[in-house]
Amino acid sequence: MAGQISFEPPRGMRDFYPEDMAWRNRVFDAFRAAADAAGFEPYDACVVENYDLLARKAGEEVGNQIYHFFDKSERHIALRPEMTPTLARMVAQRQGSLSFPLKWTAIAQCFRYERMTKGRKREHYQWNMDIIGEESVLAEVEVLGAACDALRRMGLSDADWRVHVSSRALLAELLAASGIPEDRHASVFLALDKRGKIPDEEIKYILQQGGLDDAGIAKTFELLDVKGLDGAAALVASDSPAVARLRELFRLAGLAGFADQLLFDIAVIRGLSYYTGIVFECFDTAGEFRAIFGGGRYDSLLTTIGGAPTPAVGLGFGDVVVTELLKARLGADAAQAKKGVYVGFMFPEQRDAALALAAKLRAAGECVNLALRKQKPKQFFAHAGASSCAKAVFIGPDDVAAGQAKMKDLATREETSVALAT
Amino acid sequence: MAGQISFEPPRGMRDFYPEDMAWRNRVFDAFRAAADAAGFEPYDACVVENYDLLARKAGEEVGNQIYHFFDKSERHIALRPEMTPTLARMVAQRQGSLSFPLKWTAIAQCFRYERMTKGRKREHYQWNMDIIGEESVLAEVEVLGAACDALRRMGLSDADWRVHVSSRALLAELLAASGIPEDRHASVFLALDKRGKIPDEEIKYILQQGGLDDAGIAKTFELLDVKGLDGAAALVASDSPAVARLRELFRLAGLAGFADQLLFDIAVIRGLSYYTGIVFECFDTAGEFRAIFGGGRYDSLLTTIGGAPTPAVGLGFGDVVVTELLKARLGADAAQAKKGVYVGFMFPEQRDAALALAAKLRAAGECVNLALRKQKPKQFFAHAGASSCAKAVFIGPDDVAAGQAKMKDLATREETSVALAT
Repeated sequence: MAGQISFEPPRGMRDFYPEDMAWRNRVFDAFRAAADAAGFEPYDACVVENYDLLARKAGEEVGNQIYHFFDKSERHIALRPEMTPTLARMVAQRQGSLSFPLKWTAIAQCFRYERMTKGRKREHYQWNMDIIGEESVLAEVEVLGAACDALRRMGLSDADWRVHVSSRALLAELLAASGIPEDRHASVFLALDKRGKIPDEEIKYILQQGGLDDAGIAKTFELLDVKGLDGAAALVASDSPAVARLRELFRLAGLAGFADQLLFDIAVIRGLSYYTGIVFECFDTAGEFRAIFGGGRYDSLLTTIGGAPTPAVGLGFGDVVVTELLKARLGADAAQAKKGVYVGFMFPEQRDAALALAAKLRAAGECVNLALRKQKPKQFFAHAGASSCAKAVFIGPDDVAAGQAKMKDLATREETSVALAT
Repeated sequence: MAGQISFEPPRGMRDFYPEDMAWRNRVFDAFRAAADAAGFEPYDACVVENYDLLARKAGEEVGNQIYHFFDKSERHIALRPEMTPTLARMVAQRQGSLSFPLKWTAIAQCFRYERMTKGRKREHYQWNMDIIGEESVLAEVEVLGAACDALRRMGLSDADWRVHVSSRALLAELLAASGIPEDRHASVFLALDKRGKIPDEEIKYILQQGGLDDAGIAKTFELLDVKGLDGAAALVASDSPAVARLRELFRLAGLAGFADQLLFDIAVIRGLSYYTGIVFECFDTAGEFRAIFGGGRYDSLLTTIGGAPTPAVGLGFGDVVVTELLKARLGADAAQAKKGVYVGFMFPEQRDAALALAAKLRAAGECVNLALRKQKPKQFFAHAGASSCAKAVFIGPDDVAAGQAKMKDLATREETSVALAT
């Protein structure tokens, strides 16, 4: 290795060449526009966070995956594996002065030191949407509505994806109705989260290890086979608050225009142990990819770091899976629509005219890629066609003499006349 | 410390609460729009970089300031102190397949472990604009033009700032004409960079240490007192290529519409030793702040890491100084123009109507902040006024009955009627 430097990025980290960045911008632009349309306020914090804060919230699995180190003053710092502890810290710091409910959003780079498997990197970006300080189910509706809006803005069809919705509270009611004691629920949730990912036999083993007897295990599998919210509702009290809340969610989603994108799915558990109410995960309808986004209601966020109890709903939406889905559905070359004008010139004598035209078009709000060197017409149009530009103007000696040039639409080949700057 | 977790960010790192993020977005939006208008392609890479790559390019001072650590596989990795080594790595990796000249741009977070002084943090964002593979001065014009465009888009007046331009090549000619041998130029550049920052006596000492005799030192100070490009031109050969190139830069900047923002300033040296041609730094005209941006032509970027020699022009534009300048010139509350509609309701019975109206307005392209709880009119309008919204709709029982509500412009108090969703 001595002398020769590697041109590769560090293992597990991504380079974004312009063609990769075009996809990332398509996704991030949709995140930002959807958050903006829904009235969420952007916030951010440094990717370097205090290790103690991250370790406090992280489960053991995540804790072992934290990139952490000591700075030159022996401060224990780390690259955040998720944004939520930082969010909790920032809210706790100003809990007395902030005006609740908060509707906050961030696109946060997060790091996890994981074994490298297909498609898994050690960093990703996660769009976070959180409403903090609101009990009402309208919080879930606003968060989910914005996530659905983002998928639509990216160019996916509604047929491409569905949001699977369940409720931790409903599951607790179902388990209670089954006679499974409350202190067994956590390990049951964990095991159920694995359903479909590992064989039922292994799930059964997990439940046994969690202390469930055969009757309890049989009851649990019965619950997992429940279809639809009505099916679940039939097993719990008729005045079940969890069922009422889910019905209200679906009704309000209808008013907000995305009810057809939701489906009740009792198998949605979410791995993290802190969700307390409604939970959701979005999947592609073809079932080809991992979850697109996920989230739910959580109430213990601030208390774990010493803040006051505060109801909250949050959503995490990574950049990796949705980009894979977009490439699969829209085509690998469809990252961004062509736009702007490619401007070039034939001989050095036309360079001034090309620069002046570029300045004129830019002042009029147009994006202009100005070729920096003289080119032959064939070269120029080859470069223009390979660029991200929709139109092209090539300036030769006759054009300067005439004071105008032709602007060609690179898709339709239509030509219009454009006056050169004087 | 046991038990209690700090709510502060790690030392030297910034939190961005929504009011801070509004400023950051104003700045970043201008960076992105200006890069886009000038036809630069966005790229990015992970903030975690290979230590060896960073150490190779960094001078000793920067090298000592790198945050570096070992991952669980004992790879030596680091948080980048600047984007340029990563850019060089990415270009070198695909040097055979990329189509030059490249016009690339990134907004890169960078870390330096420095002593904490006023206004200095340990991380900042730097907008990078680079043109790689182009000899012609049009490259300098395009990079500088985009930077000037960004400052205008942020809302600064042209009177607020100037770009100071010089040339390392011109300075070399001037020094050669003064009889100062070439192997002394590097230490002379370093000393000259400090002019105005430290007493002339100390600069003299630096020059002495660099091996200059009294005559050479006197000549150097004579050069530093040169005013204007004509003054400098009088001291070098009449066919000086460096003078010709600077004159061409000013002429082309005139065609591109920003010549009045440039001034020749022989004192611009740039600290980094790798600049080879034209160099520039932008300052506020009042002289209150550090440099807003800086850059120039550099030719040895790729060769330091084993790539082929490639001419290049680059610019680095940090987020900290320009944000301070914007707050000083525009006022601390002027981060973003108000926009969008704040929608609320008086009683729970109007909540559905409020949600449906929010959905309708959003579908029409409006940003809507939907209040999640019933409010009294006074409360509602207090919240609306404190929000980032320009307009507000408050829905009470009579409005639902009438099927329409009033939309109030919060600045002018003008009211218009808006049909509720059916």
